[in-house]
Amino acid sequence: MIKIAVLGYGTVGSGVVELIERNGALLKERAGEEIVIKYILDLRDFPGDPYEDKIIHDYGTILEDSQISILCEVMGGVGAAYRFTKQALEAGKSVCTSNKELVAKHGAELLAIAERMHCNYMFEASVAGGIPIIRTINSVLLADRVESVTGILNGTTNYILTKMEKENADYGEVLRQAQELGYAERNPEADVEGLDAGRKIAILADMLTGKNVDPDKIATEGISKITTADFACAKAAGMTIKLLARCSVSEDGSACVRVAPYMLALEHPLGRVDDVFNGIQVTCGMLGDALFGGKGAGKLPTASAVAADVMDCAMHPGKTVMRAWSEEAAVMGDMTEMKSRFFVRTKASARDAVLEAFAGSTPVTAEGAEDAGFFTPAMREREFQAICSQLGDAVLNRIRLL
Amino acid sequence: MIKIAVLGYGTVGSGVVELIERNGALLKERAGEEIVIKYILDLRDFPGDPYEDKIIHDYGTILEDSQISILCEVMGGVGAAYRFTKQALEAGKSVCTSNKELVAKHGAELLAIAERMHCNYMFEASVAGGIPIIRTINSVLLADRVESVTGILNGTTNYILTKMEKENADYGEVLRQAQELGYAERNPEADVEGLDAGRKIAILADMLTGKNVDPDKIATEGISKITTADFACAKAAGMTIKLLARCSVSEDGSACVRVAPYMLALEHPLGRVDDVFNGIQVTCGMLGDALFGGKGAGKLPTASAVAADVMDCAMHPGKTVMRAWSEEAAVMGDMTEMKSRFFVRTKASARDAVLEAFAGSTPVTAEGAEDAGFFTPAMREREFQAICSQLGDAVLNRIRLL
Repeated sequence: MIKIAVLGYGTVGSGVVELIERNGALLKERAGEEIVIKYILDLRDFPGDPYEDKIIHDYGTILEDSQISILCEVMGGVGAAYRFTKQALEAGKSVCTSNKELVAKHGAELLAIAERMHCNYMFEASVAGGIPIIRTINSVLLADRVESVTGILNGTTNYILTKMEKENADYGEVLRQAQELGYAERNPEADVEGLDAGRKIAILADMLTGKNVDPDKIATEGISKITTADFACAKAAGMTIKLLARCSVSEDGSACVRVAPYMLALEHPLGRVDDVFNGIQVTCGMLGDALFGGKGAGKLPTASAVAADVMDCAMHPGKTVMRAWSEEAAVMGDMTEMKSRFFVRTKASARDAVLEAFAGSTPVTAEGAEDAGFFTPAMREREFQAICSQLGDAVLNRIRLL
Repeated sequence: MIKIAVLGYGTVGSGVVELIERNGALLKERAGEEIVIKYILDLRDFPGDPYEDKIIHDYGTILEDSQISILCEVMGGVGAAYRFTKQALEAGKSVCTSNKELVAKHGAELLAIAERMHCNYMFEASVAGGIPIIRTINSVLLADRVESVTGILNGTTNYILTKMEKENADYGEVLRQAQELGYAERNPEADVEGLDAGRKIAILADMLTGKNVDPDKIATEGISKITTADFACAKAAGMTIKLLARCSVSEDGSACVRVAPYMLALEHPLGRVDDVFNGIQVTCGMLGDALFGGKGAGKLPTASAVAADVMDCAMHPGKTVMRAWSEEAAVMGDMTEMKSRFFVRTKASARDAVLEAFAGSTPVTAEGAEDAGFFTPAMREREFQAICSQLGDAVLNRIRLL
C-alpha cells in the first residue's frame, strides 16, 4: 500500500482525491499496490466532507510520517509551497505538483534535491494540464532532440481571441464577459499580458536547454492591444491571431523564447485550436513535427496529470524519473536578430510611406476597413523596429507572422 | 556499452542506423551508456556501405552473442520475423519493432514471453510511426482509463481522400497518381480496403481491452466506393470524408472496433489532418479528449519511434515496461446495435421514397448534383441496413457520420 498526502483541498486537490477514489482499482492494477490518501492538508475545515477525517492543518505531521512516500502539492504560490516541497524532497518523499510558478522559479534546485535523494519532483500538470507534454518530452521522445516547441498554453486568452474572431467583438467587451463567466480573473493581467504562458514556456525551455530559463527574462507581449481591425485583416488573408509561447534551441544550445500574439494561417495545425483548448507543436530533429492538443485546465484534466505523476513515482520507487536541468542560466539568443514576417496596421494616410519603408510588402485589405494593412517580407526584429520608429505614430499595431 | 542488432537493412533499418549514429551523444547522455550497433542482419550484401562490416546473413550469430541485449526487428512479415523475435525474447533479449502485422497477430504471445524473461517487446513504430501513441497509452496516461480512440492511421488513403476533396478528382485517377508517385503500392488493397488501418487499430484495441483483438474480426470498409458526388455533398454540409479507425471499450470491457470512411465536420480536430499526416483522438474518463498528430510513416519518423523503444529498454534493464495483453479473445460488442447518423446518396428519382423510409432525415444538396443526398437521424446499424435493403439499388452509397 502506497500512502500519499494532498497539500491543498481546492479545485485541483479535490479532483485528485476524486480521481484516486474513482480509478482506485485501475491504479492498483497498474502500480501493483493500492494507492491511498492518508492526509489532506488545508488551512480550512470541511465539515461534512466525505474526507473530513483526513483533513489536517499541520504540515509537520505529513513530513514526519515515514509511511508517506508521495505528496501532491496543489496549493500554488512560491512561499509555503516552496518550503513544504523542499522539506519533503530532502526527506526523500516525492512531490507531484501543478504549481507552474514554483517549477519555473525553483525547478532546478528542487529537481537537484530529488536526484540526490533518489526521489522525484514531477510537474506534468504545470503546463497545459490535459496535454501530457512534460512526460512526452522527458520520457517519450527518448531518442530525439526537441528543437522547438510552439504552443497555445493559456486558455483564458485563447477563449478571448476566439470570441473576438468569431463574433467580431471588441477585446474589452469579451474580457468583461469572460470575467463574468469566471473564465478570466478579476485582475486578468497574468493571463492577458502573457505572464502565465511565459511561466509555462519557461518550464519547457528549461527542459529543452537543460539549463535554467528565468521567466522574467522572456520577451513577453500580451493580447490587450489586439483589435477587431487586426482580426478583420487576418480574416481577409485566411488567417487568425493566437497568443503563442515559443522556444527554439540552436545547435550551440542558446534559446530563443518568446510569448506574443502571432498571425497564422487557419490551416496551420494550431490555427483551429480554439476556445479554452491548448495545443502544442513539437519539432524534433528526426520525428519532424508532432502536434498535441487537449484541455489546458479544469479540475479533472489537471487531476489526471497530477495522478499520472503519482503513478510514475509509485512505479519507480527509489528511482529519479525526471531529467533535471542545471541551475546555471541558459544562454539566451539575441531576439533582435530573429527573422520573421510582420503584419503592420497603419493609418490609411500613411499607406504610401509604409509601402516605401517596407520594400516588398504586400497590402492586405479588409472589407470596410479604415486602416491600411501590410505583410512585410521576412526581416530582422531590429530592422523592423527601426523602420517602425521612423514611421512614428502612423503605425497602429504590428503582429508577427508564424 | 549497450550492443544492439538491427534485423533488416531497408528503409526503416537504415533510418535506425542513421539515427543512432547522428544522435549518439544524446542517447549516451540519456541512457548513461553508449549504444552501439554490432550487427545488421540482411540477406543482401551492401558493398561500399559505411556499415558493410556489420552486415551479417546468419541470425544465429546474433542469437548466440551474449553481448547483444536489444534487437530492432524492422524486416516485416510474420514468418522469419516471428521466429527471430520469439527466439530473441526467449533468450532474454528485448525486441523493438515496426512490424504491425506481427504485433497484431502474435503480440499477446510475444509480450507474455517478454514478461516471463524480464525483457521487453516494444512496438511504438507499428502504429502511426511519428506519433508516440503506444507509449502515451502505456506509460503516460497512467492514472486514466482510455475509453476510446479514433484515428486517421493510414497515410496512403488520407493522401487519396485529401486529393479527391481538394481537386474534386475521381478515386481511380488519384490512386493512379499516388501509385506513380510511390505513395500507394502497385497492389493497393491493404491500404485502400482498410486492412492496414485494421491491424493498427487492432493493436490499440489490444491495449485498451487488455485482451486479444483479432484483426480479421474487425468490421472493415475501405475507400474505393467513395466518389466525387459524396465529396460534393460533404462540402455542401461543411464536412469532409476520412478513413477512420475506431475502438471504444464499454464499462463491461467489450470492444467495438471499426475501420470505415466517415463524414465529419471540417471543424472536428481530425477534419483537417490532411495528406500523409496521421491524427489520433484519445478519450479518457478524467482527461477528456486529447489529440495527437504527426507523420504516420517515413524513414526518420519511424526510426525515431524504434530508437525511442531501444532507449526505453536501455534505461530499464531487467524490467518489463510494456503492459501485456492476454491471449484470451476480447469480447466484441454487437456492431449492429451501434447507433450513428448516416449520409445516404440515392438516385434523384428515389428522393420521396428515401424521405419516407428515413423519417426525420435532412436533405443535403450539392450544387449541380444529379443524385439526392440525405443525413438520417441517429439509428441502429441494423435498422439502417434493413431500410437500405428495402430501398434496393436506389441507394448509391452510404457513409457514417462522426
